[in-house]
Formats: sequence, structure tokens, C-alpha cells
Amino acid sequence: MHHTELAAADRARIIHPYLPSSVEERVVMTEGSGCRLTDAEGRSYLDATGGLWLAQIGHGREEVARAAAEQMQKLEYFTSFWEFSNDRAIELATRLTSLAPEGLGHVYFTSGGSEGNEAAIKMARYYHHRRGESSRTWILARDKAYHGIGYGGGSATGFPLYHEGFAPMMPHVSHLTPPWPYRTELYGGEDPCDFLIRELEQRIAEIGPGNIAAMIGEPIMGVGGMLVPPADYWPRVREVLDRHGILLIFDEVVTAYGRVGEWFAAQHFGVTPDIIVTAKGITSGYTPLGALLVGDHVAEQLLREHGFPMGYTYNGHPVAAAVALANLDIIEREGLLARAVETGGVLHGELQAQLGDLPVVGEVRSVGMMLAVELVADKETRAPLPVRPERMPHDVIRRETGVIVRDSAHSIVLSPPLVMTEAEVKETVTAMRSVLERTTPAGEIRD
Amino acid sequence: MHHTELAAADRARIIHPYLPSSVEERVVMTEGSGCRLTDAEGRSYLDATGGLWLAQIGHGREEVARAAAEQMQKLEYFTSFWEFSNDRAIELATRLTSLAPEGLGHVYFTSGGSEGNEAAIKMARYYHHRRGESSRTWILARDKAYHGIGYGGGSATGFPLYHEGFAPMMPHVSHLTPPWPYRTELYGGEDPCDFLIRELEQRIAEIGPGNIAAMIGEPIMGVGGMLVPPADYWPRVREVLDRHGILLIFDEVVTAYGRVGEWFAAQHFGVTPDIIVTAKGITSGYTPLGALLVGDHVAEQLLREHGFPMGYTYNGHPVAAAVALANLDIIEREGLLARAVETGGVLHGELQAQLGDLPVVGEVRSVGMMLAVELVADKETRAPLPVRPERMPHDVIRRETGVIVRDSAHSIVLSPPLVMTEAEVKETVTAMRSVLERTTPAGEIRD
Repeated sequence: MHHTELAAADRARIIHPYLPSSVEERVVMTEGSGCRLTDAEGRSYLDATGGLWLAQIGHGREEVARAAAEQMQKLEYFTSFWEFSNDRAIELATRLTSLAPEGLGHVYFTSGGSEGNEAAIKMARYYHHRRGESSRTWILARDKAYHGIGYGGGSATGFPLYHEGFAPMMPHVSHLTPPWPYRTELYGGEDPCDFLIRELEQRIAEIGPGNIAAMIGEPIMGVGGMLVPPADYWPRVREVLDRHGILLIFDEVVTAYGRVGEWFAAQHFGVTPDIIVTAKGITSGYTPLGALLVGDHVAEQLLREHGFPMGYTYNGHPVAAAVALANLDIIEREGLLARAVETGGVLHGELQAQLGDLPVVGEVRSVGMMLAVELVADKETRAPLPVRPERMPHDVIRRETGVIVRDSAHSIVLSPPLVMTEAEVKETVTAMRSVLERTTPAGEIRD
Repeated sequence: MHHTELAAADRARIIHPYLPSSVEERVVMTEGSGCRLTDAEGRSYLDATGGLWLAQIGHGREEVARAAAEQMQKLEYFTSFWEFSNDRAIELATRLTSLAPEGLGHVYFTSGGSEGNEAAIKMARYYHHRRGESSRTWILARDKAYHGIGYGGGSATGFPLYHEGFAPMMPHVSHLTPPWPYRTELYGGEDPCDFLIRELEQRIAEIGPGNIAAMIGEPIMGVGGMLVPPADYWPRVREVLDRHGILLIFDEVVTAYGRVGEWFAAQHFGVTPDIIVTAKGITSGYTPLGALLVGDHVAEQLLREHGFPMGYTYNGHPVAAAVALANLDIIEREGLLARAVETGGVLHGELQAQLGDLPVVGEVRSVGMMLAVELVADKETRAPLPVRPERMPHDVIRRETGVIVRDSAHSIVLSPPLVMTEAEVKETVTAMRSVLERTTPAGEIRD
């Protein structure tokens, strides 16, 4: 089918997330290789977002396709409920626990991040329930958090957009202030970390520690705009939670598997959560898959009595596991953890050098290959750049240059495949500059 | 790895749904072909459950593996958020809407049934919200319903096991009596359908029609024990809901794509829901995938303003779509809809003939290739057969004969691949008889 027909069929048939019927434009991808994509019109793109922040090994890797096909012919699927299992899922679980922080020796499989956060919240509550503390039901989260869109994780998600029209959400969620040092106004002049820890202690006292199951957090907040917390934030949070018997859930759907230069952001920040939720980078998106890494003390409770009473159909999917194993092989063989640090450093430096002086650029921040350029109307006041939905900088960058970046809450964010070359780094930054240098403090982009 | 090592690694590392640490047994599948599976010990099994009720085309189909590998090398993944799309997702959406009941012309992709039910509940509430009836938030469901384990669908799920220790669940769900004609005691002597419709009307009056968004239901209740409603149940429910402006969501995660002899159970029952949730059979489990078929009147509301504000990472996954297309090709080419009716009829007849006279068999019921044998302690009183968790009939059948069937709430249920042969039908029923004829009304199985 030609682009025109594909786009027409798409408009007629598909409900895309976040796309109203008033928007006619469609970009219909048909091919991908490395960081490059091609659409149905034959146009070439540079993928600086890694799809939805997941294409660690880049697009179109033949060895992953081969691993998938081989497993699919051998055993494409059988359930992993009850006493049933399969060799690929066991191999993957063993591998994952060998990469995870010490003490997270158990794995629970899902098909993605949203499923994972539902499961993590249930695990936390169930853990306390089994221990005889059924009153511990509250979940602490943060404003600007994104924990997917199930009713559990979606309730922990901290944007009004994800609740409006969907309520009533799951009760017993309390949102704290996010760690976002650039936005000094959030902390009233206080040291951000001191403020946040004090707020956490206060909130725990208000709700009552005996009523709180867990705190859930993205170690670096993605949809919030790649918000990097102060280095001592997570260690101090962990200390407070430990003191009150509250579990810590890391939502590492974005940060795990090399994105931040370590297997897990937990290792980057030097903390050990009780549960780590992962997905995305576990397969680089070649098939849907998620995995929770679960602390042995948590697993021990879940595995009592009749076991943990929830399971997703595709739990332990053998093809997804085979794809994940091939993906992890590539990440290891090509040294993509080190490369994330190295290329991320170059990219950060280029962003700073090429964009830092522009009047609409407030801050460049990053950890590894998660980067953000926060846009402002005024460098001094740090007022956010006004948004023009019909002509936003990231859309114009893509339309004019073919470089795909993303908008996240007044920041342009990047999470390229970890295999991005230095030439592609330069191309990305040049494309961004070409549009941002024409962007006015009113959010208009001059022709 | 040898079975012993695999099983040990599994026990040490994997949290299986519904499996406590006290159970040592592991069945580690390594190969599958047609209805046959092989485990790591080299033992052969006959899969009469189709995994978790999804293996329509049977295991190990080479052409599906080829389709997956080809797509994976061409374009393994890019996001389908916003204006981005891909040719495979468009092709699949077009195909699905051509199979769906008239008026369900829109598709929203997920990675599975739980994600699908979260999305359906959100869609129903959002539809009313956009129409200015934000008070319509209640969801009607049924006891013994299974709508997955997200916090939304899981709240609609109607078993205490799925709520205990996980609460508070999502508010504003009300459970009705399930249609289960064999359990006459549920209806106090009244005609089951009359009872259920009266109860529905009463419940709507109690909550207030202006507060109710939707009713969600599996057309045939799966986990509840393949409960087949009276033929006029769904048409009468639809009529009541229409009168009150309440949407009808069919959870067809199990029933769609040939399982009941039609593409959708909606067609079997002659009703048109507003939203159909599907997954499982859409790919026969070769990759995770789900799709909602959405009424055009619903889609129109969702696509207003800023569009429908939720999306799963793997939305419109090109490889999953390619696999689904290959799967639908096989279902069509091999006439599996007709075959489901035919083989299901033979299987039902054999179950009735071989098991119907046993003292512990209460009822054999089925639609197409969804079958149940309800077990009782007494054929007259219909008292349910007592359960012995450590030695249940379905486990003994599998251990002794290698035939895999499943227990669902006092019924043994079957949902074989639609390609099952008549010899395999006989093998299944013979295996069941060999154990059920030794099963006492106390639930004990004699050696």
C-alpha cells in the first residue's frame, strides 16, 4: 500500500494514544536499521528517542530476529502459571538476577511496564498483608511521576491528564514533590534534598507509617522531563523508608538495561530497592516483555500459603525470553553500558555547547543516554516556554530535519539507541539548534 | 541444562503465579508442535487447554516464525503514539474491523487482556466524560467474572481471591449474579434469565442510571468455569443497557478469534457491544498482543479535544501485528471457525458419552472449543465436589496420562487448539475418564 492509502486507513481505523481526529498528519514507519528509520514515503529519520526510550541495541538487528524465529518454531508459548515453566524463562531469570543488585534474587515476569507497576503495587500490599500488617495499603508517589496507565500505576502517576475523566482512581495514593533542582521555586529557597526528605517524613507521620506499604519512584523521572535527583536523594529516601518499614519500588522501566550506563539505575545511585520494575530495554522493544526483580525477603512472603495470586497470560513467554537473552548478549558484547556513558557524555557536551547559549534553553541535564533540554521563556526567571500544540519545537525538528526527539513537560528529551554514532550525535544536536535558535520566548518558531 | 538443574533454578529464581514455595514439582516445557508439548525430561504432553486458552493454530507453526523474523528485521518496533504509525498495524486494524460486528470500526492496540480491560474501563468513563456526563463512573460486572489483574479490570473481576490483600481496589464497581443455569439455587426457582434481568434493572435503579458508565462481561465466563448463559441473556441485557445509556463491554479475551466458532462471541449471541476487548487468540500466543474493537460512536468521543490520553509502549507493535496477520491467515485458510464447531461438537459428545454417567460429573457444557465438565459430590443436590489442593483431578490427569486440562472453580475446562484431531479428542476424554472414574464424592482419587 502507498503512503496515502496507509494514512487514510490509519485515520479511519486506529485510535492512537494522544492523537485527536483533528490531526491529519501520519508518519507511517516501514523500515528501521540502527538509529535510522524509513517511512512509507521513503523519507529517512534519525531516531533520537529510541522509539519510546527502549531501543538500546538499535533497529533491525538480524541476530535477534533469528533468535526469535528459532524459539518460535521450537516452543512459541506455554503458560508459566502454577508448576509450568520453560527453559528460556528460567535462563533469563537466572541471567537477570546475576545482573541485579545483591538481594534481588527473584523474578516475576510481565508483558510491559504498566503491567509491572500494577504487579509491584500489589506485591507491596500483599507482602504486608501476609506479614499481618494489612493496614499498610498507602502508596507514596511523586507529582510528575509516570508509572503507566493501569488503574494502580496510573493512580501513582502524577499528572492530572492521566486522572481526568478516568476517576475514581485506586485510593490510598499520596503524591510528594518531585526532585527537580532546576525548579528552585518548588523548595522555597531550601536545599531541595533537605526539603524533600523533610516533606517525606512529614507525610509519613500524617498518614501513619503503619498505613503505608511502599514508595514508588522512577530513579530519574522520564515523562516528567528526565528529572535527575541530587546524588544523596535516593540514599536518604531509602534510609527514611527503612526506618518506617516501608518498601521502596524503583520503576526502572526506562532506566534499566544500560540506559544510564549501568544495568540498573539502582546501581548508579547506590541504593537497593525492594522491587525493581523493568520492561522496555529488556528486549529493546523487539517483543513486549517486562520483569520485576524482587527482593528475597519480599518473595519469601509472596510464596507462602497459596502463592502470589496474580498472573498475566504471557508470563514467562519463551520467545520474549529468547529475544531478551539475545538483546542482553548484544548489550554485553558491544559494551553498551560503557558506550552509554561515553556517547551520553559527548551528546551532553554538544547540547551544552550548541544550545546552551540560546535564550530558550534553560538547562541541559543527563545521566548516560537519558538527556533533557529544558525550555524556558526567560533564562533568569526560568519561566517555562509557552506551548503551541500545533507547532511545537520537537514536531518542527522532525518535519524539517527528520531527527526524532520528544517533548516531555517543557523539555525536549532524548534517549537514543545506545549504539548511536558520534556523527549521529552531531546530526541530532545540529537539527535541534536549527529550530531552537528560531524559537522565540513566546514559543513561536520563526520560518 | 538438564531438567534437574532447570527445576532447581526455577525454584530459586522465579515467582510463578499461584505457586507457593511449598510445591517442589516443575514441568519445564521445551518444545511444542500442534497439540503436543515436550518437557525437559523428554516427556510428551497433549495440550487440551491451548496454553492459557489461546493456542488456536497449535504450537510451533513455522510460517508464523518466518513472518515474525521477516518483520523483525524490517521494522521490529517504533512507537504508535501521536501521529506515528506503521504499515503492519494499519493492515491488522483494517483486517480486524472487517471481521468485527458492524459499527465497531475502530481499533486500539494493547499487549494483552489485562491491559485491554484497563483501557476499556477508561474508555467507557472517558466517553461519558467527554459527552458531559462525568457522573457516569460505575462499572457493572458479575461475580465469578475474570477481567484480568490490573487494578481496574481486577476490581471488576468477581472472585475474593483477586481482591484479598490487594485492596483498596478501584471504587465504583458493582457485581451482579452470573448466568449459570446449572446452579438453579442462585435464582431461587425463578427462570435464570428473568431473575438476572430483574436484578440488573434493580441494580441500575439503586445506583442510578446517570451514575453508570458500562457493564463489562465475558460472553461466556471462562475462569468461572466456561459458564454459558441462556441464549436470550445477552440480547436482553443489551436492551436494558441501551434504555439507560449504559455501554456494553464484551471481554472476549478468551472467546474471540474462532474459539466459539465465530470470529467473536458477540456474533454467536447476536449482540453488538460498544467495545470488544480481545487478546490471546489474536496471535495464538506467538507474541503478546491485544486489540480493542471500539464502536465508532465511542471512538468519535475519544478522538475529540486532545485525543485519548493513554497508551501502552507496545501499542501497534509491528512484529506482533505481523504475527497476528499470519495467525489470522491460518485460521481462515484452515477453516478453523468451522472446525471449532465440528471438533467442539465431537468433543462435547465424547465427554457426555464417556463421563456423563460418572457420579462426580454434574454437567457437560460447551460452545465451540470452550468446554467444561462440572464436578459434583452429588448429582441430585449438585453439591460441588470437595477440593483437595494437593491432589486435584486435573493434576492427576496430567501426571498419569500427560493430557493437560485445567481446573476452574469446580469444573474441569478444556480449550484445545482448534486444530485438534479426532484421535486427540478421544485421547483427552479417555484420560479424563481414567481419573474421574476413580474420583469419589469426597474428592479423593483412588489408586
